[in-house]
Amino acid sequence: MSSNREIHLASRPQGWPTGDNFRLVTTEVPVPGPGQLVVRNQYISVDPYMRGRMNDVRSYVPPFALDAPLDGGAVGEVVAGGSDEISLGDTVLHGLGWREFALLDAKAARKVDPGLAPLTAYLGVLGMTGLTAYAGLLEVAAMKPGETVFVSGAAGAVGSVVGQIAKLRGAGRVVGSAGSAAKVERLRALGFDAAFDYHDGPVRDLLRAAAPGGVDVYFDNVGGEHLEAAISSMNPHGRAAICGMIAHYNDTEPPAAPRNLAQVIGKRLTLRGFLVSDHGQLREQFVREVSGWLREGTLSYDETIVDGLENAPAAFLGLLRGENLGKMLVRV
Amino acid sequence: MSSNREIHLASRPQGWPTGDNFRLVTTEVPVPGPGQLVVRNQYISVDPYMRGRMNDVRSYVPPFALDAPLDGGAVGEVVAGGSDEISLGDTVLHGLGWREFALLDAKAARKVDPGLAPLTAYLGVLGMTGLTAYAGLLEVAAMKPGETVFVSGAAGAVGSVVGQIAKLRGAGRVVGSAGSAAKVERLRALGFDAAFDYHDGPVRDLLRAAAPGGVDVYFDNVGGEHLEAAISSMNPHGRAAICGMIAHYNDTEPPAAPRNLAQVIGKRLTLRGFLVSDHGQLREQFVREVSGWLREGTLSYDETIVDGLENAPAAFLGLLRGENLGKMLVRV
Repeated sequence: MSSNREIHLASRPQGWPTGDNFRLVTTEVPVPGPGQLVVRNQYISVDPYMRGRMNDVRSYVPPFALDAPLDGGAVGEVVAGGSDEISLGDTVLHGLGWREFALLDAKAARKVDPGLAPLTAYLGVLGMTGLTAYAGLLEVAAMKPGETVFVSGAAGAVGSVVGQIAKLRGAGRVVGSAGSAAKVERLRALGFDAAFDYHDGPVRDLLRAAAPGGVDVYFDNVGGEHLEAAISSMNPHGRAAICGMIAHYNDTEPPAAPRNLAQVIGKRLTLRGFLVSDHGQLREQFVREVSGWLREGTLSYDETIVDGLENAPAAFLGLLRGENLGKMLVRV
Repeated sequence: MSSNREIHLASRPQGWPTGDNFRLVTTEVPVPGPGQLVVRNQYISVDPYMRGRMNDVRSYVPPFALDAPLDGGAVGEVVAGGSDEISLGDTVLHGLGWREFALLDAKAARKVDPGLAPLTAYLGVLGMTGLTAYAGLLEVAAMKPGETVFVSGAAGAVGSVVGQIAKLRGAGRVVGSAGSAAKVERLRALGFDAAFDYHDGPVRDLLRAAAPGGVDVYFDNVGGEHLEAAISSMNPHGRAAICGMIAHYNDTEPPAAPRNLAQVIGKRLTLRGFLVSDHGQLREQFVREVSGWLREGTLSYDETIVDGLENAPAAFLGLLRGENLGKMLVRV
């Protein structure tokens, strides 16, 4: 425990990132001040939204700084420092991933119980990922029982949970899209009523065949052609919860689709972008309901775990290429 | 009263309509059956949404039939027939414009009082146009006092009422766009805090200058570059009520999306299309509130009146080119 390793942003990607945009840096293990903790990270979360923060544009979160560590959700063990609530040896959830040892204010950490759920679940299905699915589907899109739900990026961490929650909450039909035959098979196993590989044809045609009665709720992780297809298939008064547009994160030109946006008028559609950070008031209900489903075994979740902090950039690049099934994590 | 004249749809326009798409047809004055009325139309409403119905596509209303009269809002006098509620000589509002004499079920007509407001107001500020403005601003976009509102097509029938209602309901700043210097001047006279001619530069720049604090509510009549500019200027949690996209009605190629649509996520924007027909439950409150403003003289409305049924196609073409100030009407 004499040295620390961190992943820094070495340069801002233009279009698709490459390994050269990242740098592994060795530093000193930090020393906690009063009210601070040092956490030895065990798992770090790798998320698509990080791509936006690599650009030098003002957004809902500040861009990552160059030549400084990236950050993101992480769980680990307190190895130095502490507070009235948090002691040495406690396991905590916090926001300073992408490094072996994190120095943070104790107030910025939340204690979790490693006996109640696997550590990784606190980053995924019981964490930000799960709450994103839960809030987007039930609050932003206000899904009602009997409705048809379409989820893009459905084999991803958020999408696979969206589809399962939709079924558990009484959706009439749940359709998912993904990027490979294996993922499509997995979606069927998870209980999706229909699933397709978006490489197999125009998304509009694939969706129309999978949801012949139209779509009431669209949970968008992809944007572009998927959003256009969803608008085309949506029934009157349909709602889209716009969570992500991974199809565009590496665009160097502004995207052209959806070209049929005018349909929102005649169909009275609502397209609503959201961030999970606005829906913290749902957390308690979410944890109660989702833990119940996990205990019953009615909700499953997939994880793709990459070993070694030095492989975190590769994990991130793989995530952008859709190489993950479910939640992408790095075991430090 | 021995012959009747109607405007028929002679052919479906490809792109911009021309006079050749319409035909003036002379027919017999209809004879009412039991429970029917014959109404001599005095004013007919000319509306942008009619352009969509000229295409042979399924939408929220069926397309116009070829070689049959067009229809749309109209007011006129009952000259034959009647019912328990409606008598000869009554003035009624109904949906069969674009002809001199309309034959309709008495149940499809609503008696109006020509002493309470000018006849034309029942087609405009106190009719569908006014309710569109009222419902879109206050219910769909849920404008709150103090907010900044941007209206495109602001010198049109709906837009000019949206801007004024926004001010009367306490908007902090109201910005309008229009297509000529004269219209911009008129918007200032109507109480808009800022107005610009969209020909004067990129809409994005013009809007940013007119609303330096950003936009909370966007009332869209135009689509395209206007919607893109609005998304760029919108503040977090902004709402857009999508009423029309006149910029696209004559497109022969699908328009490119607002290329910045991904901003809806980070800013948590809501884009919501609507049709006034879903908001009838507001009518009573709307008529009460708007009549009050009209009586006080705090709400003004403009009309562009074209004489002669034979000129209705020209009026419609002029409307699509933005030649109207306020409501476009034909005096039969």
